Amino acid sequence: MDVAGRAARLRERLDVDALLVTKLVNIRYLTGFTGSAAMLLVLPDQLLFVTDGRYRDQAGEQLAAAGVDATIRIGLTVQGQAEILGTAASGLPRLGLEAHAVTWAQQRAMADTWFPFVGELVPTENVVESLRIVKDDGELARIEAAATIATTALTNVRDLLDQHPTEHEFGLAIDTEIRHLGAEGNSFETIVGSGPNGAKPHHRAASSSRRIGDGELVVLDYGAIVDGYCSDMTRTICTGTPTELQQRMLDVVMTAQQAGVDAVKEGRTGVEVDRACRDIIGAAGWADAFSHGTGHGVGLEIHEDPRVTFASTATLAAGHVVTVEPGVYLPEQGGVRIEDTLVVTPGGSRPLTHASKNWDLRSWPSPPTI
Amino acid sequence: MDVAGRAARLRERLDVDALLVTKLVNIRYLTGFTGSAAMLLVLPDQLLFVTDGRYRDQAGEQLAAAGVDATIRIGLTVQGQAEILGTAASGLPRLGLEAHAVTWAQQRAMADTWFPFVGELVPTENVVESLRIVKDDGELARIEAAATIATTALTNVRDLLDQHPTEHEFGLAIDTEIRHLGAEGNSFETIVGSGPNGAKPHHRAASSSRRIGDGELVVLDYGAIVDGYCSDMTRTICTGTPTELQQRMLDVVMTAQQAGVDAVKEGRTGVEVDRACRDIIGAAGWADAFSHGTGHGVGLEIHEDPRVTFASTATLAAGHVVTVEPGVYLPEQGGVRIEDTLVVTPGGSRPLTHASKNWDLRSWPSPPTI
Repeated sequence: MDVAGRAARLRERLDVDALLVTKLVNIRYLTGFTGSAAMLLVLPDQLLFVTDGRYRDQAGEQLAAAGVDATIRIGLTVQGQAEILGTAASGLPRLGLEAHAVTWAQQRAMADTWFPFVGELVPTENVVESLRIVKDDGELARIEAAATIATTALTNVRDLLDQHPTEHEFGLAIDTEIRHLGAEGNSFETIVGSGPNGAKPHHRAASSSRRIGDGELVVLDYGAIVDGYCSDMTRTICTGTPTELQQRMLDVVMTAQQAGVDAVKEGRTGVEVDRACRDIIGAAGWADAFSHGTGHGVGLEIHEDPRVTFASTATLAAGHVVTVEPGVYLPEQGGVRIEDTLVVTPGGSRPLTHASKNWDLRSWPSPPTI
Repeated sequence: MDVAGRAARLRERLDVDALLVTKLVNIRYLTGFTGSAAMLLVLPDQLLFVTDGRYRDQAGEQLAAAGVDATIRIGLTVQGQAEILGTAASGLPRLGLEAHAVTWAQQRAMADTWFPFVGELVPTENVVESLRIVKDDGELARIEAAATIATTALTNVRDLLDQHPTEHEFGLAIDTEIRHLGAEGNSFETIVGSGPNGAKPHHRAASSSRRIGDGELVVLDYGAIVDGYCSDMTRTICTGTPTELQQRMLDVVMTAQQAGVDAVKEGRTGVEVDRACRDIIGAAGWADAFSHGTGHGVGLEIHEDPRVTFASTATLAAGHVVTVEPGVYLPEQGGVRIEDTLVVTPGGSRPLTHASKNWDLRSWPSPPTI
């Protein structure tokens, strides 16, 4: 990953004299710092990194490891950090804040006391995010590694299904295996929706004591984190030969998902990808049963731009990473959702999730040992 | 838990005509709703609960279960939600926003387009939090249940130490056992700091491949979540008979922690509790080795008011829940921290964490089966 070059690219996009970055994931993107408290002032000719005493060593080590040339200053209190930043920004006509990340209370404090010698605090939106939307090879490798761990984890725990575990138990087995395999954790709370629970798109496994029975559809939506980067994948399996209705749901969603994947290309809009999926599900008579958007960007955050929905304003470009995840949910009956994460390429897309889509989890190839 | 009565108590504290609650944990506190998207408008004579289509059923079920009398409205988009709220707030002279939870971008959108017929948007700070700071018996029971699970989990996995696991492996074993025992998850990322790593107060276990050796101090700081409520406890064990230095560190911190616990009483200040610990560690010659505050409040969030630090402005009152967690950290050597979570009572305090403080984990009593 070329972390060191990012601040220079950010400066090219600024229409303010400096930007105060306060959103931690953006600071991580620009510096490599993974701690829980820091602020980064992007000045025309300097990066000023401010953190507290806990992170003195870590900040120095991580910024050096990323090759980031920044001045690191420690403020033991928020007051002290404000003074460091206020002095450095003194005299600037226009200082940008990340309006989507700074709270109103923070903005008021900054306007009142942090930056008395700044001409104007300017709200900016998604400036660092507009860089983050295009992933480099190092970032793609991390997302793909996380996805591989997620697939391997599910395959490794599949025998547990013979014991009819609860959704909670099966989710926990996946989560634990993900961490055994070296991921930092889950990229979001694992969804295990079996039988009628599958009809709830956001059914949480954690608190569910429902046992997974035979002949049931089970929606599995989960991901891993590797070096900060998230994976996201959904598979729907069946714990027995599907009934006619189950098979039709699987077929329709599989076809819709493939149409969505085929629609992912440089220059296509999020709306077009969404429509590709929606048309097929609608033609099957289930338009109302696909009750959410088709996909979203994935990276350091599990939900980022570009959005892939009927209301999306995004046009896809090479290096964007998006999910394609149509579903059909029939109340009382169950649900099917199939989701891959893809990187947009000049001519089409390349999948970062590689798991089988066969409903029979036992048929999946055994993964090589990680 | 008396969830239904909370909105009325909140209204008594408002110096605005209505409050828009957007911080999810505050919405949970006032309504019992556990989903990931909602807004609550607290009007003088009505509670207006606005969420999106995903949560139609869940909102109805959870608010009814909590006995909360609210009008539930579904807005499929943010735009739609804004219209519902804007109409309901129309004509109000002063509408409060949670300034510490609303982003600057949200506040600007609300001022510009959401609330055209509201006289003034007023920043409020910690209004719901000022209710949350005093816990009722139901909340205390949940924190104590989470703490019991955490203690049991550590006891259940202690034999693993004989195999010299990595910090990552031992942390993962604790985390998995916490979920096996029925908790919703960890209340924060588990800290396992063995040997020299113990000298870093916030050492993360997740990414550490350091093996826990014999005769080492191991700082274990972790917690569980039960029904949304967090527990928080630190114990420092030794994997072998402590050396003279290790024993002195254990003794000093144990004495300091007990002094802190003894100082927790209704009417005492956070500063006084902090000083009680700090004086003892200072007298032992390790003032500089205690590099963080003494404690913090715990509840629906792992860090809430009141703060127990040298800069605290809090005075303790019955029903407050605070941690007392002094530590001594000697670079290269290791660290000791001991932490309990206590509820303040009229005459003193009552612990919610009940684990042994013996450095020998094998000596801890076997827990009853949960």
